Amino acid sequence: MLSAQANKDEKEIIDLLNRQTVSWNKGDLNEFMSGYWHNDSLMFVGKNGITYGYTNALNNYKKNYDSPEKKGKLFFEIIKVKKLSAEYYWVLGKYFLKRTIGDASGNYTLLFRKINGKWMIIADHSSSS
Amino acid sequence: MLSAQANKDEKEIIDLLNRQTVSWNKGDLNEFMSGYWHNDSLMFVGKNGITYGYTNALNNYKKNYDSPEKKGKLFFEIIKVKKLSAEYYWVLGKYFLKRTIGDASGNYTLLFRKINGKWMIIADHSSSS
Repeated sequence: MLSAQANKDEKEIIDLLNRQTVSWNKGDLNEFMSGYWHNDSLMFVGKNGITYGYTNALNNYKKNYDSPEKKGKLFFEIIKVKKLSAEYYWVLGKYFLKRTIGDASGNYTLLFRKINGKWMIIADHSSSS
Repeated sequence: MLSAQANKDEKEIIDLLNRQTVSWNKGDLNEFMSGYWHNDSLMFVGKNGITYGYTNALNNYKKNYDSPEKKGKLFFEIIKVKKLSAEYYWVLGKYFLKRTIGDASGNYTLLFRKINGKWMIIADHSSSS
């Protein structure tokens, strides 16, 4: 059985991921990014290799998804929310992008850190499959 | 400055990754896999989605790299070795596969856990780029 704190942490992380899809699906990429660590050390790993920093990551999203057709509708399937310590969680999930211009899907692994009492994504590795 | 224990942990993890390339480059996939958690809960995330378990991961390697030409020569560039706790580390790196049939490269993010005093990979997310 999870402790009360672990239950609370897990709920906060799942809520954050659910809010991300809501933000994406109304087309608000700034709000979508609000769950990411606002820091130059944020790490994104994907088909373009490694991107460092919140601003670069946000600009990439804005460049690659610059129309409602490209954004489509985003769904997450959260597969594993793993507590590593009081400060870190690791999350594995699947993403599905439903689009008129062609669907996309794949997996993500996320490293969450509790910063000033809030869970934030500090590293995101996403890949299509 | 890292503590003596953190220095020791980091060295063990880097040594393990270096041994992996040595094993791969002599064509020994069983030895290559020895740094992975020998458990059905081991997680591999890649272009084929999620694979669970040591045996399935090993069989995938044996199927996909069944000749010296396919195996090629493996090199790692270790980019980040991040301590999460006394029990967990997170590692980001690049892989390069030099091959006569076509090179391959990409990134990996690994979750390490110290199990019975030994660092083991419990989750591997690899993607080409």
